This record gives sequence, C-alpha cells and structure tokens, in this order.
Amino acid sequence: MTQVMALLTDFGYRDHYVGVMKGVIWGIAPDVQIADISHAVRPQNVFEGAFLLAQAYPYFPPETIFVAVVDPGVGTRRRPLAAQIGNYYFVVPDNGLLTFVIREARKQKWPMRFVHLTQTAYWLPAISRSFHGRDIFAPVAAHLATGVALEALGPTVEDPVLIPIPEPSPEQEGWRGEIIYIDGFGNLITNITPLHLGEREQWKIRYKDHEVRGIVSTFGDGQPGDLIAMFDSTGFLSLCIVNGNAEMTLKAQTGEVLWVLPQV
Amino acid sequence: MTQVMALLTDFGYRDHYVGVMKGVIWGIAPDVQIADISHAVRPQNVFEGAFLLAQAYPYFPPETIFVAVVDPGVGTRRRPLAAQIGNYYFVVPDNGLLTFVIREARKQKWPMRFVHLTQTAYWLPAISRSFHGRDIFAPVAAHLATGVALEALGPTVEDPVLIPIPEPSPEQEGWRGEIIYIDGFGNLITNITPLHLGEREQWKIRYKDHEVRGIVSTFGDGQPGDLIAMFDSTGFLSLCIVNGNAEMTLKAQTGEVLWVLPQV
Amino acid sequence: MTQVMALLTDFGYRDHYVGVMKGVIWGIAPDVQIADISHAVRPQNVFEGAFLLAQAYPYFPPETIFVAVVDPGVGTRRRPLAAQIGNYYFVVPDNGLLTFVIREARKQKWPMRFVHLTQTAYWLPAISRSFHGRDIFAPVAAHLATGVALEALGPTVEDPVLIPIPEPSPEQEGWRGEIIYIDGFGNLITNITPLHLGEREQWKIRYKDHEVRGIVSTFGDGQPGDLIAMFDSTGFLSLCIVNGNAEMTLKAQTGEVLWVLPQV
Repeated sequence: MTQVMALLTDFGYRDHYVGVMKGVIWGIAPDVQIADISHAVRPQNVFEGAFLLAQAYPYFPPETIFVAVVDPGVGTRRRPLAAQIGNYYFVVPDNGLLTFVIREARKQKWPMRFVHLTQTAYWLPAISRSFHGRDIFAPVAAHLATGVALEALGPTVEDPVLIPIPEPSPEQEGWRGEIIYIDGFGNLITNITPLHLGEREQWKIRYKDHEVRGIVSTFGDGQPGDLIAMFDSTGFLSLCIVNGNAEMTLKAQTGEVLWVLPQV
Repeated sequence: MTQVMALLTDFGYRDHYVGVMKGVIWGIAPDVQIADISHAVRPQNVFEGAFLLAQAYPYFPPETIFVAVVDPGVGTRRRPLAAQIGNYYFVVPDNGLLTFVIREARKQKWPMRFVHLTQTAYWLPAISRSFHGRDIFAPVAAHLATGVALEALGPTVEDPVLIPIPEPSPEQEGWRGEIIYIDGFGNLITNITPLHLGEREQWKIRYKDHEVRGIVSTFGDGQPGDLIAMFDSTGFLSLCIVNGNAEMTLKAQTGEVLWVLPQV
Repeated sequence: MTQVMALLTDFGYRDHYVGVMKGVIWGIAPDVQIADISHAVRPQNVFEGAFLLAQAYPYFPPETIFVAVVDPGVGTRRRPLAAQIGNYYFVVPDNGLLTFVIREARKQKWPMRFVHLTQTAYWLPAISRSFHGRDIFAPVAAHLATGVALEALGPTVEDPVLIPIPEPSPEQEGWRGEIIYIDGFGNLITNITPLHLGEREQWKIRYKDHEVRGIVSTFGDGQPGDLIAMFDSTGFLSLCIVNGNAEMTLKAQTGEVLWVLPQV
C-alpha cells in the first residue's frame, strides 16, 4: 500500500519552507504521496491548526502520517512529539495541535501512544533553531513511513499538551456559543453541533444585531445575499451569506459570541 | 500507466477542503498522481472555472481525470456529472463548467458521454449538503481511476448545462470583443483569436481611452511599462504591460469591451 | 529510485500555469514526484528566484531536477538552459537564476555542465512566445527524468549569465550589510553570515533608528513583540519580531542597509 502523508503548517505559500520539507521527506522515503492540508494557518495560531487538522484527518486513509507544524515555541524547550492515535500517525510540536484529535480519541476509546522525539539519528545532521519542520519533523515522519517503529524515535510521553477548546454554555433554554473558525469563503463556523440542539427543530440565531430565523439544510434554501444558518461540512453550525462573504459583510471575527435560542 | 488526476476548485488555499479531497482520493486509489490546476477561481464563478479548465486539459496525458468543483448550486437539485470527452474524463457539478470543452469536442467531433451520478455506492457513506467535492466528486473520480466504468456511476445524460460564452461581434471592418479573463500577472485576456483577424496584419486596439498600434509577437517587442497587444499562451489576444500589471494600472475588469480595428 | 522534481516560478496560484506544467511533465514521465518550492516569487524578480532556489536545493535528494521559471525575457533571445551542478539538474532560462548555486559549486569544486536547449525534439510541438515553462522547460525536464542525456538537449555553454549578489562591506570594525529577502513571516533576511562575524560574540545591529543589542540563538530568547537578531534557518542573520511581523511593523524593504557593529 502506498504511504500517504499530509502536511499542515503556518509557513504560507511565498517561501521555500514547505517545498524543502517535501525534499527532505522524499530523500528518505521517495514513494510517499504528500497532500497539503493548508499552509495558510494564521501565523503561530495553534488553535486554528488544531481545528483544521481535526477537520481533515478522518478523511485520509488508515496509516496516514500527519506532519503539523505551527510552532511558536520552536527553539525553546517545548518537546517535539510523534503519536499514534487510532489508525493515524502524527508528528508535531507538543503545544496542543492534537487537542481535538485526542478529545475524539478519548470519546471513541481509540488507543493512543506518544513519544518524545529525542533520537537524533532520525533527524537531519544539522538542526537549526528556527525550522524544526525541515530538520526534525519532516525526517522523522519520513522514517516512520519507511517502517521505523514509533518507540524507536524516543521515550514515551503520557502528558501531551492540550489547549482549551471553547464549549457552548446553556442559556435561556438555548446556547451561548462562539465563532471558532472563519473559512476562506467567509463562512462563520461556530462551536454549536447538532448534539447541542437535540430534537427541537425551531431555532433562531442572534449574532451582533442580526437575527436568523431557522436553521436551513443547504445554501439553496436562501436567496443570494441572505444570511443563513446551517450545519455545514465541518459538522458545526455556520453563519453564511448565500453566494457572499459573511466575514467581510458582517466584519466578523473568531471569538465573537452568538446565541441559539428557541423560536417561540 | 500511472493515472493522473487534476483538481480545479474555488476552495482557496486557506482551508482544509482541497487536502481532504486528496485524502479521500488516495484512500480509494492510492497511486494516483494529483495536480492542482487552481483553487483560486473567484468564489462561485463558473465561467472562470470553465475557462481555466479549457486552458489546462489539452496539456494533460490521455485518460487524465479532471475534478472541477465550482458549485454555487451545491445541495440543490443540480446534477452531479461524470463525462468522457475525447480522451479525457471529467467529474463536475452540472452547471456549465464543461462548456468550453464541449464546444471544442463538437468542433473536433470527439465522442462524448455524460452520466448523472446517482450510484451512491461510489460516494462517501455520509453526504453533507455543502461539500460534494469531498463527499461525491472526489470518491467518484477515484473509483473511475481504479477502473470503474462510467456507465456504472449512473444513467446517461444527453443535455449537460452550457453557459453563454461571449463571442466577438464584427464592427467597422474589425471586431468588438471583451475581456474574458485576467490572469495573476494582470494580463487582460480577450475573446479575440487569430481566426477572427485572418490574413490582415495591421491592427490597432482601442480599450477605454487607450490605443495600442499593432499586435506584437512577444513581450520583448515592447519596452518595460509599454501597453502591448499580443496573442499569448492562452491562444487569445491579450493586453499586457511589459514587466507590469495591466489590471492594476488600467483598473481593468472582465466584461469590459475593446475594439480591434484595421490600422489605416 | 523514484525521480524527484521541484518547481519554482513567479506564476502565482490563481492561474492554470503551474498545473499545466505538471500535466506536460506527467505526460512524458508519469511517475515523477513533483514538489513546489514556491510560485509566489515576485513577478520577474530573478534575484528572489535565485535566492529561494539556493535555499531549497541542498535539501532535495541527489538527482533531483529543478525547474525554475522566472523569465522576464521570455520570447526574446535569452537562452533556455539545462545544467548539471554537483548531484543536481536544473532547467532554467539563462538569466542568473543559478547564480547562488554556481557560486557554491565553485567554492565546493563541484563539476558543472551547461547546455543551450536547442533540440526541439524534446519540446512541445507548438511553442508559444510567452510560456516557455509549459512549452520548453517542463518537457525538457521530463525527458531528463526519463533518462535523456544532458548533451542530447543541445550544445555546451560555458558562460551562463550571473547576476550581482550584494556582499557585505567591512565598516568600523563591523559590517555594512543589507536586507536581501523578506519571508512570509515578515522576517528580514540579510546578507551577513557567521563567517563575517568570526569569533567575536558581542555585536549590536543598527537598522533605521533601531538598535538591537546582541544576537540571540532562538525566538524564545526574546519576549513577544521584541525585535531580535538571530542566524535563522537560511543561514543568514535575520531581524525578526518575536511572534510578530518585522516587515509590516518596521515598513522594511529589500535593499535597505544595516550595520553590525561590535558592542563596546
């Protein structure tokens, strides 16, 4: 079976950083297929990286190796990690990038193993202080792809760093949630899931001075320009402008609150 | 022969959407080579997607499978399609994305077959209402790559949707054309081809309050900063500023008209 | 061994240009792995292309073929070239893109061979005047990948074009250097290397009206918002704002000068 790898970074598309990681990987494991999840994570935004990683990994084949590098602590004492979680492998700085994945693994009771990357034999010979994606994470992932065992990479870790995930709070028979991600279409993705709303079907959403009545099931249920609420492909409740950009039109930002309340 | 696939979407480069499609494809057909044509089609701009697809496909090897997803009607009753046109395969929403390709196929008398994707066995198990690129188009393309026959994917369609392509109109012994695409260098690509201009060699181009005298054959025929007209790599007449950006300098937009008239 | 190829252009991510090059390559050499180094070189900026190519190539496996197309002279008499330098192959317009690589090869006494691409049998059948990336460089690189010898592509060239590389000059027991590249994080990369500074450890950096005292070894040695100087992953001295963007905050531009002086 061809080995698949997937990269997620905040390195952007202007520089050579991502291409260089692929060069390092293919120098060690030349037949690996490499997908880019995103390299446009906002600089040093670990939460956003964690969110995108969680959105992407379930759609990749078993045994995929994910290399996620959003790494404000590069060069400090933060640990580099490799992990096996369920059927997947992850190579990351230990700063919370796996938080969503670990939460799901706990729910699903998937097996999890974490190791602290200390075996320098699997790194590049020279290690810079600012680009461990190239010098540590890429070569370690490539060695994993060639069949090196997780345990060979370093000692076991029991306490990977987790970051807080904002959870909705119950309020007035409904929920107070917040915008946790804004995608490239300008859709406002919240932390409300169908599980929060249960059986009741009639809801209204209040956000800033807007009120959206009802949760629709598809863009086609609104007219172009309408602000709608729907459970989108992320699985979360999203506010969207049909054929438009809610982020720009509503000057929206992550962290802003909204209320999902019963329609009466 | 290694199977090649090429993706074209308006999903942008910020989110996980394109990477997830590759994960789905490689889960089914792990050895496929995947090229990105563009993921920066302006949101929901089907014409632009159709134009870029037409520019790209002839340069890919026979049997390439193109997955093009610019899909303002996602979640509505618009049909998902797969097609064989000449030596190529296409997997698309039925909204006109194939218009240029079909026009060429009619001219060249290439065989064409279209099917309505209805066989859910070739889709992901769960289908969202907003991301058929992941849930329908990617897995169907991957199954095609593994050898599934087009006919197995659903019933034949005879009437794929076509969109209008603006054609130049004859005027004053010349042509009235329009800007149909502006590329990343700011070059203004029109709908005028060498066939419109025939044997005559002396032309002038009028656009806004600019007049360009003569059609040159290469950027090197002008000085940096000059506005020139040339038939560029798209095969269309383009207005370009040598070593500059005509879109920004001339505040150009698609849909604007220009006149190509005999020089007297 | 799987053949690796790496692409570097100023074609951007909006258009079909890069995808089309991959289609051409895979039509000739379908099993090649293709990495993107960057396609966001500033339009026609040969120096920037040369810098990024030099940063990237040493991390790729031996025999990698680099296709670099930043080509303001496309369609003029500038020569298309292929080269073998040390263990690597390069396919480029002859405009200085290889300057840094050649400088290193001279230092390391690597063997170098250059040929002028004239054998049209290895090009696409039709050659546009504005897109030699598609019509000449991609197919030539693909033929190299299939085993065609460098000498078969055209006659030997002894005088590839070189561009000036700005070198630091000694001043007041220190150095006057300049910013030669600004990366996507806004880090200001200068032309000062550890070799310039030698054994002395105490330095201060003057840039505009800023003075940075000391060269630190990692971002973690500063507080968020601090302007620091460090030797980063490029090997050059860089000015960076910890968890910030020095380019935007300091309104920095390439070509600006700075002084590295002894701390007294």
